[in-house]
Amino acid sequence: MDDKLNFKFMAKALALAKRSLGRTRPNPSVGAIIVKNKKIVGKGFHKIAGKDHAEIIAIKEAGLLAKGADLYVTLEPCSHKGKTPPCANSIVSSGIKNIYIAMTDPNPLVNGKGVDFLKKNGMNVFLGIMEEEAKKLNLGFISRMKYKRPYIRSKIAISLDGKTSLQNGKSRWITSKSSREDVQKWRSKSCAILTGKGTINIDNPSLLVKDQSAKNQPLRIILDSYLTIKPNSKILQQNNVVVVYGEDSNLNLPKLKKTKAKLEKITLLNNKIDLMALMQFLNKLEINDLWVEAGPKLNGELLKLELLDELITYMAPYIIGGNANSMFDAPILKNMSDKIKFTIIDFRNIGEDIRIQAKLDKNYVD
Amino acid sequence: MDDKLNFKFMAKALALAKRSLGRTRPNPSVGAIIVKNKKIVGKGFHKIAGKDHAEIIAIKEAGLLAKGADLYVTLEPCSHKGKTPPCANSIVSSGIKNIYIAMTDPNPLVNGKGVDFLKKNGMNVFLGIMEEEAKKLNLGFISRMKYKRPYIRSKIAISLDGKTSLQNGKSRWITSKSSREDVQKWRSKSCAILTGKGTINIDNPSLLVKDQSAKNQPLRIILDSYLTIKPNSKILQQNNVVVVYGEDSNLNLPKLKKTKAKLEKITLLNNKIDLMALMQFLNKLEINDLWVEAGPKLNGELLKLELLDELITYMAPYIIGGNANSMFDAPILKNMSDKIKFTIIDFRNIGEDIRIQAKLDKNYVD
Repeated sequence: MDDKLNFKFMAKALALAKRSLGRTRPNPSVGAIIVKNKKIVGKGFHKIAGKDHAEIIAIKEAGLLAKGADLYVTLEPCSHKGKTPPCANSIVSSGIKNIYIAMTDPNPLVNGKGVDFLKKNGMNVFLGIMEEEAKKLNLGFISRMKYKRPYIRSKIAISLDGKTSLQNGKSRWITSKSSREDVQKWRSKSCAILTGKGTINIDNPSLLVKDQSAKNQPLRIILDSYLTIKPNSKILQQNNVVVVYGEDSNLNLPKLKKTKAKLEKITLLNNKIDLMALMQFLNKLEINDLWVEAGPKLNGELLKLELLDELITYMAPYIIGGNANSMFDAPILKNMSDKIKFTIIDFRNIGEDIRIQAKLDKNYVD
Repeated sequence: MDDKLNFKFMAKALALAKRSLGRTRPNPSVGAIIVKNKKIVGKGFHKIAGKDHAEIIAIKEAGLLAKGADLYVTLEPCSHKGKTPPCANSIVSSGIKNIYIAMTDPNPLVNGKGVDFLKKNGMNVFLGIMEEEAKKLNLGFISRMKYKRPYIRSKIAISLDGKTSLQNGKSRWITSKSSREDVQKWRSKSCAILTGKGTINIDNPSLLVKDQSAKNQPLRIILDSYLTIKPNSKILQQNNVVVVYGEDSNLNLPKLKKTKAKLEKITLLNNKIDLMALMQFLNKLEINDLWVEAGPKLNGELLKLELLDELITYMAPYIIGGNANSMFDAPILKNMSDKIKFTIIDFRNIGEDIRIQAKLDKNYVD
């Protein structure tokens, strides 16, 4: 065992896994490398659900060279039959000798069973190399497996004085083009984008990933308790859009049925979409990573319910001043000791703006 | 001329100048280095008004070695008699041959006259080495000379969602101990600290520089339009405190006269201290660098009048949520195009917080 080499090859497997981030739903992103005599003889990453897993692609590439080789894989190989046969069997048959696994699979159908199977079949299993890095790649998958809800990141563009929009709701544009381009990257890595009806009715955004085909767009989910979204909104002319509502109070339903959007009725709680019921719906859709682009009302509700794992703030060098809207309408605190603790995990320049990434201390997935 | 050496020695002169930042009021901070045969033979920095200027201290240290030497000085030597005799004469008499000056003196009494005098007396004058760095050191002095008002930095501690205090005004503590210690450094480099009566009445702060003697504290200036400050406030038991008021509406005057604070009556404008009149008062006091620690009302007014050159934000990783107070009550904008442009000049970790330093684009002193 050579630690330095192990890190090197696992890092390569992780880099491969990254290439399909956001496109493997409902599966996690996984990369695999097969090494023989310190040389890579096979590599693969899982591209899309239903197709070969990373290990299988790598084994096919390695062919007969797999015999006696080392396999580096970012996630525990599966031991159950899903859409494809179990990888653990194929690994054993390939003749691979040593297997290095970054993390166990949080999927209860696997969760250690893959490792057990490999060990029972005489392989040397080394677990935990670059585990933290591997977990970071699949926070969404881990969250869904552990908590039956996606990992939720909320993106909020603010001014230097923490304002998201003027009192009339107008917010175009607080942040720079560079920041808006950076947002595109996050959108493309997410299974779904969540927003509120208010954002649609005020800004009329498309919430598209520019470089992706109409088919590969993340699911766009719009919360609209009483179905008052404007039926001519741009986003409703697209595929992969669902409007989640509680009651149809204004007879908008027939008009909306003529749009491309799907409609999903869900329970209301205090006149708002029940966010816990929404989580069940998202879990049913097998959404791993949820990207929120919403206003202070929805963000405040998510925060109150601890449904905001990460906050990604783009801060622009402008001051907007009094009576403009803040990031969160809720919660309303009585004491400073009730303030909600985050940890800043990254901050950097994006053009003239600063991007601040912070994770909620209380329910961090890992 | 050796550019690399010139930078090296001017950098040393600048480092010397920095050592007296905030203590030379009303004078600027200046450093000087005398070099002969590539070796430093004399050095000095201006310590306090009324005492020797930097050049004189360096010349005294160099003694006869000054003859034919090079002088590096961060600010144009004075050519007029102030509290001390003009430096330009002493430099000529010392026999120094070459003089490297970072920036001309913005003081209209000097402003080029020092350079002219040196040239006329046969010296080689090289102007502008590390000029930007030199200007940064004396933004306050430059501002006072050019605009007859101090350079104004406002420090605001905020949560991740841009909140400064709860609705009841409580703000202890949003930011970490590390940030509060960092604030101490800025206070110590400022001639004066400005705050509003609200901050005093709610938080009862001392606004002290912990490591400085009672005598060396910056002047603390409290704006209190109608003199409603609590007479038992801690800050009023100190030296170097002035309460600026417009009218004595509640017969507080006799009680306040018994405190250590000085009282200064000034004009009101729309029921608030006229901030332009305040600037005249600060100019009269020869305040170069003003450090503001105030609430959203005073900060908003300063912003509206473009009396906020720099914003220094300490952002703590907490969310406070709805109905808490923002950074600025004013201005109230109608259009996003009216947003006030800053440039972020520095951002970094301070403990678990982030410090963001931004300068107002419109009236940056340089």
